[in-house]
Amino acid sequence: MMQQEILATPGGAIELPRHLLDVDGLEAPQIEGLLDSAEGMFEVLGRDVRKTPALRGRTIITAFFENSTRTRVSFEQAGKILGADVINVTASASSVSKGESLYNTVRTLQAMQIDALVIRHPHSGAPYFVARHVDASVINAGDGTHAHPTQALLDLFTIRRRFGRLDGLKVAIVGDVLYSRVARSDVMALRKMGASVSVCAPPTLLPPGWRPGTSIKEGGPFEGVRIESAVEDAVSDAHVVMALRIQRERQEAGHLPELREYSTRYGINARRLALAKREAIVMHPGPMNEGVEISPDIAHGAQSVVEEQVKNGVAVRMAVLYALCARGRSDAR
Amino acid sequence: MMQQEILATPGGAIELPRHLLDVDGLEAPQIEGLLDSAEGMFEVLGRDVRKTPALRGRTIITAFFENSTRTRVSFEQAGKILGADVINVTASASSVSKGESLYNTVRTLQAMQIDALVIRHPHSGAPYFVARHVDASVINAGDGTHAHPTQALLDLFTIRRRFGRLDGLKVAIVGDVLYSRVARSDVMALRKMGASVSVCAPPTLLPPGWRPGTSIKEGGPFEGVRIESAVEDAVSDAHVVMALRIQRERQEAGHLPELREYSTRYGINARRLALAKREAIVMHPGPMNEGVEISPDIAHGAQSVVEEQVKNGVAVRMAVLYALCARGRSDAR
Amino acid sequence: MMQQEILATPGGAIELPRHLLDVDGLEAPQIEGLLDSAEGMFEVLGRDVRKTPALRGRTIITAFFENSTRTRVSFEQAGKILGADVINVTASASSVSKGESLYNTVRTLQAMQIDALVIRHPHSGAPYFVARHVDASVINAGDGTHAHPTQALLDLFTIRRRFGRLDGLKVAIVGDVLYSRVARSDVMALRKMGASVSVCAPPTLLPPGWRPGTSIKEGGPFEGVRIESAVEDAVSDAHVVMALRIQRERQEAGHLPELREYSTRYGINARRLALAKREAIVMHPGPMNEGVEISPDIAHGAQSVVEEQVKNGVAVRMAVLYALCARGRSDAR
Repeated sequence: MMQQEILATPGGAIELPRHLLDVDGLEAPQIEGLLDSAEGMFEVLGRDVRKTPALRGRTIITAFFENSTRTRVSFEQAGKILGADVINVTASASSVSKGESLYNTVRTLQAMQIDALVIRHPHSGAPYFVARHVDASVINAGDGTHAHPTQALLDLFTIRRRFGRLDGLKVAIVGDVLYSRVARSDVMALRKMGASVSVCAPPTLLPPGWRPGTSIKEGGPFEGVRIESAVEDAVSDAHVVMALRIQRERQEAGHLPELREYSTRYGINARRLALAKREAIVMHPGPMNEGVEISPDIAHGAQSVVEEQVKNGVAVRMAVLYALCARGRSDAR
Repeated sequence: MMQQEILATPGGAIELPRHLLDVDGLEAPQIEGLLDSAEGMFEVLGRDVRKTPALRGRTIITAFFENSTRTRVSFEQAGKILGADVINVTASASSVSKGESLYNTVRTLQAMQIDALVIRHPHSGAPYFVARHVDASVINAGDGTHAHPTQALLDLFTIRRRFGRLDGLKVAIVGDVLYSRVARSDVMALRKMGASVSVCAPPTLLPPGWRPGTSIKEGGPFEGVRIESAVEDAVSDAHVVMALRIQRERQEAGHLPELREYSTRYGINARRLALAKREAIVMHPGPMNEGVEISPDIAHGAQSVVEEQVKNGVAVRMAVLYALCARGRSDAR
Repeated sequence: MMQQEILATPGGAIELPRHLLDVDGLEAPQIEGLLDSAEGMFEVLGRDVRKTPALRGRTIITAFFENSTRTRVSFEQAGKILGADVINVTASASSVSKGESLYNTVRTLQAMQIDALVIRHPHSGAPYFVARHVDASVINAGDGTHAHPTQALLDLFTIRRRFGRLDGLKVAIVGDVLYSRVARSDVMALRKMGASVSVCAPPTLLPPGWRPGTSIKEGGPFEGVRIESAVEDAVSDAHVVMALRIQRERQEAGHLPELREYSTRYGINARRLALAKREAIVMHPGPMNEGVEISPDIAHGAQSVVEEQVKNGVAVRMAVLYALCARGRSDAR
């Protein structure tokens, strides 16, 4: 994210990095610009003919070294609606490491003349490595436990659409904060936009130094985040209650109590949601373990915006692809 | 298939259900309308430039929870010729059941703003469940042992193209009638269109109550179907001889005699075909076990229309996709 | 490759076979014509909007019975840039052999109305079999140890772009000459175009009768090829140094010395490259085993054109697809 370029988006001219690797390097006006652009894309999604020529003649490759039908289809749909050609590449990280190096794999894809490389990889940081070595715009679609910037943007977009703003809202995030790239990206983006964030997780699933009952003091992207030991305190008066997916691998590694105990202590259910604001929304990045981190009635209840998140994800990814690949971009290269 | 809508097709305005889940709910005029529409699509297939903008800006997802290159490619080709974007999703039913529920999977796909969901699933009835929970048009591309409506339509289309009519023809269907979704859909559709149907199968592969040497008496979709104990009687004077694919799983479960014995008693060969009408055609839904249910000389002989069935399948699927997704549809939603 | 047709390409009207199965049957003017056409395609690849309507309404199926993301993506990109619809089919050769025959598989794909079938298959000769049985143009994307004609064409294109000619150049090819379809196609195409070719390989990896220290005498496509026992002699004064991929299967079968020993005796490194012409280029069909057949500094050094080969591969495949599928073709059928 070293180079900055000026790009015209439907939301006005904003400077954007060449790649979207994380939310760390995005400034609030850039996030605002992308969300504004996503509003325009949301309108396109609602049209009878869901198609624009904006990225005609552009090639987007989705390179997924980790399974995710959901995210891949979302990017594929976004790219195709914008008129781009989308080519899917799947590979197990292990088979790639046995054979060709990641460097050679992405240099080869790059050499085929592509505009964007959407990459998901089990190793934190892999997209940075890739971005240093290709001319195409690299979009991180999730790397290890590190970042998932388009998920954070779609979450912000979903919240902003509901409340008209992000500043001053209280967002409670409950679950595996330590290993969740969604949580990491969401917390950082929410703080940048002026939301207050409370997190709650089993102590083994909190980042080092995050102590229940305290707030993050040191300057940095997480400054001001409140860590609660009781879910009830985290969700109290919240505008947004976000449950994170429990990764069963974590449990097998001993970082998690029994699922039943987890559900009892941290699961989002009707009783806990009642403590949040009356107009609160419930979010989940999916796929959900219903009955574990979220109860089925809440997952599909009136306050759930889980499906809105999915729809908004297409709009946000359209905005990101457009910002990084639209006409004029290649002139600047 | 609860909602009915009026749709304009190239064959005129016909009322069609919102989904295509089976042939049970289709009336003869609806079937006729789809076959007429398929004639127009067949003409498009023969053009030098095989492309129409009819479904531009529409998104079709093929979600195959069971392998079938043949059917998936047929739908993909049909959708692309009509100008739609087609996104493929494959998943093993078992991995889905371990993780996300079918409900959440299809709700997620739906939320990405799609127009049609072509689903193949090993569990009979799965597409009905899906159709109750999505706005997109659901097309059943084969569910368990239950139904395969586009196969039935393409079979009818193939027969009608050859004989100019369906009414009054004799169709012999030989093989695993009990477990074949193709047979179930074909028999039902053929009866609706006035064809007479004779079936012949090992007694263990006949539906309960279907006794060789009798005809189905009770009112219902199978009324009048004749069950023969000898293939020779079934194919005698038939206009159409259809061999069904033997599923080796059935044999392993003890429902089938040895393949050699099956071939001897039920296989379609030159001697048996000679009993049919001189102008009779031979059909098979594919893929064929040559030497088992059909002898190689017949499979590729002058009377075989197996490849016409494949070509016609694209035309019929174009007609179905067009009928369910064409412009104006979304206005009605 | 029985039928010949006259086709207009951007490089002028050339006669081309209906299929591209190997380079054996191509005459020098045909190769020249395809390379000229690829120059025009190369220019398209450099445009801001990388899209032409040349193959609009055409369907290309890639049927890969052997894994190769690299080659499949190259063809998919080439087809999509030309405006064709591209449908991917993957299958393990074993699963196909268990179920449907290759004959029935490709007849089925053909019946879906396609224009080109790009096939990769582990069995040498499979594409010939296919070509005899389909109307679509068959393009061999690699069959067993036999041929890989588009790789040969892209290699020639890469060399010609660098040196302005092929005639009179010295090309050294080092590695598994016996089992490499790339080597076989490259050597043949280079000889047709007047280049001199030196090969060097462990004796167990040379075709029968190819004795180190001699030149091929008998008339035929390999006439004049020089076999060297020392890499140093092969690369001496060469314009082009091409390292072939070592297939680890070969080693397991006992045809290869230890990898370390192979690298010591046959690996392309700086010391050896220094013996070639000062302006020499280094080529590799990829994926590379760095540190085995090529040292990392050379693989990514100033003389390496490995990534140019990949880019040129898209241009050459565009030229081939265009030549075989462009408008007017179907009129002639």
